[in-house]
Amino acid sequence: MRNICPILGCILLAVMSILSIPERAETAELSEATQACLGCHEAVTPGIVADWKKSHHARVSPAEAIKKPLLARRVSFKNPPAGLAETAVGCAECHTANPSTHKDTFDHNGFKVHVVVSPGDCAACHPQEVDEYKHNIMSEAHGNLLKNPVYKSLMDSANCLQKFDGVRARLTTVDRLTEEDSCIYCHGTKVEVKGLKTRETTMGEMDFPVLSGWPSGGVGRINPDGTKGACSACHTRHAFSIEMARKPATCSECHKGPDVPAYKVYQVSKHGNLYESVGDKWDFSAVPWTIGKDFTAPACAACHASLLVNDGGEVVAKRSHRMNDRSAWRLFGLPYAHPHPISADTTIIKNKAGLPLPTELTGEPVQGYLIDKKEQGKRRASMRGICLQCHATSWVDGHFARFEKSVETTNQMTRTATDIILAAWKNGLAKGLDKQDSIFNEAIERMWVEQWLFYANSTRFASAMGGADYGVFAEGRWYMSKNIQQMADWLRFLGAASRADKTKK
Amino acid sequence: MRNICPILGCILLAVMSILSIPERAETAELSEATQACLGCHEAVTPGIVADWKKSHHARVSPAEAIKKPLLARRVSFKNPPAGLAETAVGCAECHTANPSTHKDTFDHNGFKVHVVVSPGDCAACHPQEVDEYKHNIMSEAHGNLLKNPVYKSLMDSANCLQKFDGVRARLTTVDRLTEEDSCIYCHGTKVEVKGLKTRETTMGEMDFPVLSGWPSGGVGRINPDGTKGACSACHTRHAFSIEMARKPATCSECHKGPDVPAYKVYQVSKHGNLYESVGDKWDFSAVPWTIGKDFTAPACAACHASLLVNDGGEVVAKRSHRMNDRSAWRLFGLPYAHPHPISADTTIIKNKAGLPLPTELTGEPVQGYLIDKKEQGKRRASMRGICLQCHATSWVDGHFARFEKSVETTNQMTRTATDIILAAWKNGLAKGLDKQDSIFNEAIERMWVEQWLFYANSTRFASAMGGADYGVFAEGRWYMSKNIQQMADWLRFLGAASRADKTKK
Amino acid sequence: MRNICPILGCILLAVMSILSIPERAETAELSEATQACLGCHEAVTPGIVADWKKSHHARVSPAEAIKKPLLARRVSFKNPPAGLAETAVGCAECHTANPSTHKDTFDHNGFKVHVVVSPGDCAACHPQEVDEYKHNIMSEAHGNLLKNPVYKSLMDSANCLQKFDGVRARLTTVDRLTEEDSCIYCHGTKVEVKGLKTRETTMGEMDFPVLSGWPSGGVGRINPDGTKGACSACHTRHAFSIEMARKPATCSECHKGPDVPAYKVYQVSKHGNLYESVGDKWDFSAVPWTIGKDFTAPACAACHASLLVNDGGEVVAKRSHRMNDRSAWRLFGLPYAHPHPISADTTIIKNKAGLPLPTELTGEPVQGYLIDKKEQGKRRASMRGICLQCHATSWVDGHFARFEKSVETTNQMTRTATDIILAAWKNGLAKGLDKQDSIFNEAIERMWVEQWLFYANSTRFASAMGGADYGVFAEGRWYMSKNIQQMADWLRFLGAASRADKTKK
Repeated sequence: MRNICPILGCILLAVMSILSIPERAETAELSEATQACLGCHEAVTPGIVADWKKSHHARVSPAEAIKKPLLARRVSFKNPPAGLAETAVGCAECHTANPSTHKDTFDHNGFKVHVVVSPGDCAACHPQEVDEYKHNIMSEAHGNLLKNPVYKSLMDSANCLQKFDGVRARLTTVDRLTEEDSCIYCHGTKVEVKGLKTRETTMGEMDFPVLSGWPSGGVGRINPDGTKGACSACHTRHAFSIEMARKPATCSECHKGPDVPAYKVYQVSKHGNLYESVGDKWDFSAVPWTIGKDFTAPACAACHASLLVNDGGEVVAKRSHRMNDRSAWRLFGLPYAHPHPISADTTIIKNKAGLPLPTELTGEPVQGYLIDKKEQGKRRASMRGICLQCHATSWVDGHFARFEKSVETTNQMTRTATDIILAAWKNGLAKGLDKQDSIFNEAIERMWVEQWLFYANSTRFASAMGGADYGVFAEGRWYMSKNIQQMADWLRFLGAASRADKTKK
Repeated sequence: MRNICPILGCILLAVMSILSIPERAETAELSEATQACLGCHEAVTPGIVADWKKSHHARVSPAEAIKKPLLARRVSFKNPPAGLAETAVGCAECHTANPSTHKDTFDHNGFKVHVVVSPGDCAACHPQEVDEYKHNIMSEAHGNLLKNPVYKSLMDSANCLQKFDGVRARLTTVDRLTEEDSCIYCHGTKVEVKGLKTRETTMGEMDFPVLSGWPSGGVGRINPDGTKGACSACHTRHAFSIEMARKPATCSECHKGPDVPAYKVYQVSKHGNLYESVGDKWDFSAVPWTIGKDFTAPACAACHASLLVNDGGEVVAKRSHRMNDRSAWRLFGLPYAHPHPISADTTIIKNKAGLPLPTELTGEPVQGYLIDKKEQGKRRASMRGICLQCHATSWVDGHFARFEKSVETTNQMTRTATDIILAAWKNGLAKGLDKQDSIFNEAIERMWVEQWLFYANSTRFASAMGGADYGVFAEGRWYMSKNIQQMADWLRFLGAASRADKTKK
Repeated sequence: MRNICPILGCILLAVMSILSIPERAETAELSEATQACLGCHEAVTPGIVADWKKSHHARVSPAEAIKKPLLARRVSFKNPPAGLAETAVGCAECHTANPSTHKDTFDHNGFKVHVVVSPGDCAACHPQEVDEYKHNIMSEAHGNLLKNPVYKSLMDSANCLQKFDGVRARLTTVDRLTEEDSCIYCHGTKVEVKGLKTRETTMGEMDFPVLSGWPSGGVGRINPDGTKGACSACHTRHAFSIEMARKPATCSECHKGPDVPAYKVYQVSKHGNLYESVGDKWDFSAVPWTIGKDFTAPACAACHASLLVNDGGEVVAKRSHRMNDRSAWRLFGLPYAHPHPISADTTIIKNKAGLPLPTELTGEPVQGYLIDKKEQGKRRASMRGICLQCHATSWVDGHFARFEKSVETTNQMTRTATDIILAAWKNGLAKGLDKQDSIFNEAIERMWVEQWLFYANSTRFASAMGGADYGVFAEGRWYMSKNIQQMADWLRFLGAASRADKTKK
């Protein structure tokens, strides 16, 4: 029996390797700089280090990563990044890259370290993804909200303090911290260096940069090196895994509320039911991602971003970090659903009324700034190509016919609500643009906002993704319809109160 | 050491078989027809094929399936279906069955194929389940909604477009696509063949049937063969697994919104907490389903449908596809909770006022159409029998005492809201049946609808399933109570506006 | 090859042990009494028994449990409980403990059994946890709600029936069953013995105590032995596992609704995203709980209760069952967020207006009953210590700066809403305390309630836990802002209706 022990050992090892998660046993060397970081940070921030140790970054050098077959690659550089090719991607590789462009660079134990790793840093190994993301509307999410006076005014209507004067309540001020804790949390803060501060640490006195707009993981973060975006918004620190970015919960961080309820709709869709019920058996780490083999129903990333292949290894959809590459419509109504803007920077858009909106207040899409029907068709075809892997043509055709109808009817219902608010402004029962007032601050104006921002959006998302239960009663058609009736009544009540006020005087 | 390799191989195989999911290593032959289907469809719709390959259907022939011990059987036929007994249940077995009854049958590469597999097809192997489902109110969900003028009017109030005339908003038209994307999505569409269409495919030109009402997976689907229902609503295509049907997410596709928030209530209940926390260790595929061994807290199916046994193999509850077999009350208020209807087709019901409703507007259940107290007692006893596997009698008695009280008090609160709407109609501040108008279209009428459809329903579901957190503030008692106050105020506002209008004139 | 079979056997056993869940193979003896219980109850309540069999209690005797290293212990007694040390913790050990103090003790097959196992019973092995819990505000949740006339009045506004008199709707009565099915479900019922009842059982006629307030698993349950609380609220029966108590779903049973949406906020936070996406790989049973190794993002218990260590085994946070030990603020506004009360019994608090509230109606915290700034600082430091395991100081500082600002601004928004309701009371458009009326029953009063109970609370929880998506549109800042506008309009409408009523007369 003396032979058994070594056999047992080797077999158990084989079994363990089947059971354990890592796909490959690669272990790249760590750079000396990274080893120096770890020397302290394993004790100082053990959670970060533990997370990173489980990552691909900790095991695979760029030089090894580029050797994989084209479709299996997670890197996209042509030439290996100078000085970074042969070691694992550790603390120093990211946090000391490009020191001269980073305004947040500071001296830290003899290293030029920066706090905010940016897409500019990630581009060393992932240039294609970073470039695509630049053309993704998400990368401009900060400016698109803050530099558009209409949207900024909508934002104020959520965040401003208010005072009651005995008759009416009025918006007063808002502060930066509140905005960063509210809309800007997802849209991304502007991170700025406000000097250095000396702090007592377990290693003695040390200087650290003082950052405003920090913490920040929003998709359109303005980084101290001038780049925009935060890859870690989806590829969560410090594992930066593709699994995490593909799991729908990641998207839910910003796409769950009634304005963009994509995640909630997914959850009640058949696709979401499958994920919830049997998704624990799927492989979210495989690159490329094989339909049917790695998963049997799509998660968010499958339809909107990931590189998909079929069982024969043929490409069904190319990876894209311009997230709307497969979407013909921008469902998010402002106030109407519309073809996707061409430029990621939407502040350049002007409608006929001179407002920086992609549609007129009456619904027509603005010309010149939005993708045309041909481009819409191309994007729709990309999406359909994915659907058709599991659904016959008649199924897919039927689905899209309903969806296009929903875009049309929800826009019509927004138009009806807009007619009411226009009447309110005209009759002096609410103060609009002609009175140099916000169009989002009064009660009836907010009911109008909810018509498109919550109910029409929710209905469209539900229609797009097969989540009817959400689209009917949860936050959809019922409310879209009820809200119009309530707005009309409210307008009558405002009229009656206004007349009563006059009588009183 | 030369002996080790084969040992290693066989051991690894043993280990792999422990790790892999399938319960049995059965592999039935595929029919020639199914092999022909797979020849193309593995490439054309790989997702479907991959899903099916993981199914019982792909591995077990009906002849094998019927050999299992009675309680372990997943089939219920007496005589093996002609010509289908000895091969696996593949594409052809379902999609070419009963060609003459299927109006969606078309010529496809030499086969008579139909698109919409129906309960009539499934009945070949599962006749008992199909028969039970016929008596399940869900199978009539299409007609029960569309052919009942009161409910159709409620449906219109969610789906119709509206126009604002400067003073009031009025419902206008609705289209079929919208309805199919809304209420009918869950209730089930009517699928009809509208001719043939030639399409260019990767295999050359081919004819396919043009279907209206497609796609469709609603529980009361009207199929081209005249049958009603879609087994795939819960036994999701193309794995058709019992695991999927038992997982609560499956039910959530149609039972999550505020009208029937069973899933949300389950999630906050102690049972749901257990499922969410430790349910990944439960066995959702075992037939029969053993309490305590296979699971330690019920999911939806355990209480409402599944065959349950105790550790000794004794039957605790018989499988039933008439889902209300263990439910004394229909909690879904129309507008009041009531004993379950006797017939699955509820369009036959008439109350004293001549309306097709199971209760009077004042709350009394209609006579003759609903189950009597004896049948209620029998169903309650079935449910209690399940509870008692994990709870002592005093616990169960206490639970049901609270639940019965909730049925009573929520109905009383609906009555109070109804008194307000009756006053609105009487005083001409809203237009009801006496004015030949919908009773669901105006703002105050919709507030009344929410009283029973959202708040009373939610409170009752929360009470039935121990989800108090949902039943108090999420969508329950707080809103049930607040809504009455708001309705009363709204009625006063309508009165004041009405008088102001008259003064104005 | 004859050697292979035994090798195979032993290897498979090794593999199975890797795969199986239990951490240790301990198997303590069962007491004779427990064996007697099991003799019947394995058949009578198999679900309970199956659950218990998987528990630590079923495997480990107290004498073994105390031998573990200090940080790994799950028991806290100094002297082993008399007579209980050497056997597993089975039915009899808990259900026959302390018979004289338990009013629910009854004769059952020769044993003195009680139904309601209480913290007094658990204290035999877990005295420190029970003692901490006594100082946890949750243990007083029953009295804090029912014995505070202001809160009881709020409770009535959710639970009372109402009648409509043709003009106004008024609250009428409420019953005990409704309260137990509503607020008291989470706060905990008062369980009282109302005599004995003889029941026919499968074992013949038997006597059982009749309990009112049963079932009950609320955190502040008043037990028949006079103790307060239910350990099983979180350590769910009958596994009583630490895993279950640490899983966030457990907390969701009472912390999901809009009044305390901690769970919903967690779900959209980055921490919750990580749990949802990769938490299935974490170890929720390890004691102590090692940051980075056992989990890479906190669940509720990690921040608020659990014993945490770093990879080096150093204590990062001590276990505490006084749940607010690491929380400087009580976010739950009544109506304003305030420093935590010192005493778990909050009925002793009186504000300047003589009301049993922790703040004045105008927002100032009451003096003497709430923790001071020093204690707040201490608690904040405990929490920060946990954050700092994965986040740098500047990240944590930035987070807390925003959070403190949110406490301030949400309180200001509550103040503005309060100004409106004060005007309503002053102008006779709603009836407040000066009219000896509830301040929570009328429509506009309920809008005011939602301002702090739903919207300000939600905003604060979202701010505290990084769940901005919830805090902006789901139930947060948008509604907090909109509600003020709606309240102001509603007040005008009430005024107009009131004047119209007078004109009419």
